[in-house]
Amino acid sequence: MQNANFPTDADGRVYHLFIRPGEAANRVLTVGDVPRAVAIAKTPGFEVKFIRRAPRLFTTITGLYKGVPVTIITSLMGIPNADFTFRELRHCIQGPFAIVRIGTCGTPLEDAKVGDIIVPDVYHTVLRNPDAFGPGKSLPIEQRYLVSGEMHPDRDLTSIVRKHVSTLSYKMHAGACLSCCSFYSSQGRQDQNFQDQNVELVDHYIKTVPGFSMMEMESAHFCDLARCVNSSVCGAVYMSAAHIALAQRKSNDFLSNEKKHQIELGLGKAILDSLVEFKIPGEVTTVANSVWTHTGEPLGDWTDFKSEFE
Amino acid sequence: MQNANFPTDADGRVYHLFIRPGEAANRVLTVGDVPRAVAIAKTPGFEVKFIRRAPRLFTTITGLYKGVPVTIITSLMGIPNADFTFRELRHCIQGPFAIVRIGTCGTPLEDAKVGDIIVPDVYHTVLRNPDAFGPGKSLPIEQRYLVSGEMHPDRDLTSIVRKHVSTLSYKMHAGACLSCCSFYSSQGRQDQNFQDQNVELVDHYIKTVPGFSMMEMESAHFCDLARCVNSSVCGAVYMSAAHIALAQRKSNDFLSNEKKHQIELGLGKAILDSLVEFKIPGEVTTVANSVWTHTGEPLGDWTDFKSEFE
Repeated sequence: MQNANFPTDADGRVYHLFIRPGEAANRVLTVGDVPRAVAIAKTPGFEVKFIRRAPRLFTTITGLYKGVPVTIITSLMGIPNADFTFRELRHCIQGPFAIVRIGTCGTPLEDAKVGDIIVPDVYHTVLRNPDAFGPGKSLPIEQRYLVSGEMHPDRDLTSIVRKHVSTLSYKMHAGACLSCCSFYSSQGRQDQNFQDQNVELVDHYIKTVPGFSMMEMESAHFCDLARCVNSSVCGAVYMSAAHIALAQRKSNDFLSNEKKHQIELGLGKAILDSLVEFKIPGEVTTVANSVWTHTGEPLGDWTDFKSEFE
Repeated sequence: MQNANFPTDADGRVYHLFIRPGEAANRVLTVGDVPRAVAIAKTPGFEVKFIRRAPRLFTTITGLYKGVPVTIITSLMGIPNADFTFRELRHCIQGPFAIVRIGTCGTPLEDAKVGDIIVPDVYHTVLRNPDAFGPGKSLPIEQRYLVSGEMHPDRDLTSIVRKHVSTLSYKMHAGACLSCCSFYSSQGRQDQNFQDQNVELVDHYIKTVPGFSMMEMESAHFCDLARCVNSSVCGAVYMSAAHIALAQRKSNDFLSNEKKHQIELGLGKAILDSLVEFKIPGEVTTVANSVWTHTGEPLGDWTDFKSEFE
């Protein structure tokens, strides 16, 4: 590793994802965990060409879906890990790229059940303000939990995602996504062990965030970074996301693991179909030494992965 | 999994760490990644009694160090993962507990070299403000990157940590730790692909944060949550941390992996020695069905771990 400013190793691999240019395609499906990434990579029509498990636990699977280069990557959990993923992918991908996240979420919508799918059209980041806490502190709720202004996903990509998700047998919702810095405090979960001052927080979001439909921990940061890309330097990034309702925050229902796995397989195929349909403006189609032009066995331990996650 | 408010499974395991009461001791050493946790668990005198690798990748190793129950846990990277770790540990540990983090950091100190060790006495959280970015935005730097007020580790625990670290052959520093929401933007790393408006950020920290000595991504959040514990409900938490200088942010030096591994073994032993020396006020010494009273083979795949991380 060299250069503390943007560390890469002697082979040009970025520090956390542990991949280099040519190992990630310009159509990216991102998920939170490895079992979901592996399950989606088994979708019929997906041919694995490359797999890398980084020491820092990020896993990258690049292959051809219906003949088109696509990367499936685990961005793990939370804003900082979404940040590693997006920034190091931007370094490794040549020209503009598209990224769609499949996540899980909690929903306060009265008409949403666990297992429904939410494709937001507005995003906000929510950060707990450390200066609002600690002994004797008492600030208004909007200063305890900071809700950012509106951010927007790519409209065309989101339309294509909605078209493919609508072919599934699950109810689909739109609205505003809050991506929170915590699974607990800033999502309004109550824990008597901590002074979170968040009893009225979900109701506060309902009152003040137009179209509030879900909470999770990453998607708004992808949306935020997409708008902050210097597109004239490196090419733009087109972002969207779809979320499985895992927790009903009004009834306290929680989706079973079996149903979640079933839904994520269908949703995975819908997002792969969306990614290969989306026309990336200014797409770069030829990349030197790319893993998707490799004609032999997959580079990496795909056989191990397949058996580990049976 | 049941109850969307604080999900646990039918056996009482918390959702992300995937452990339950009796599986974590009230002296905790926390590190960022699995290889470091396994390396420290091999310290002579540490007898592994339990190991659990969670589906969400958190790994917990509980054992006896010099006969005293100690847990080594990976908190992975970033504030949200530190949050999962601290809150779910608080749920699983009976009575007060002590937690010491071993991390890596970047340092702007002129007199610090890579491989030095920093034990802070002040912590701040730094959050990038999403509303300061996006098309046409131009806000003063203190509104782009929000630096929290001062937070303090436990004084007695920090004194013991310093005593043990001072026996090692590395130079030790004190000062203020900034725990940042990103490895890149809020730590002042330059990336021409993004509009981070952070060229002068490190100099801004030097000018405005008294004693500024290091940047990393987690320790301040442990410090923050320790002060927010409802100690009368569940017992207090005593926190401290020690960091290996991995990146010299003035000279751009980066520590080699070999030297890092060598330092973390010595530092691991120093922190284990600190944890067993620290007297926890109001300590609960008997816990029902604890893994450290188990007399047979370790519960879990310790043999697999030892061979995987040779």
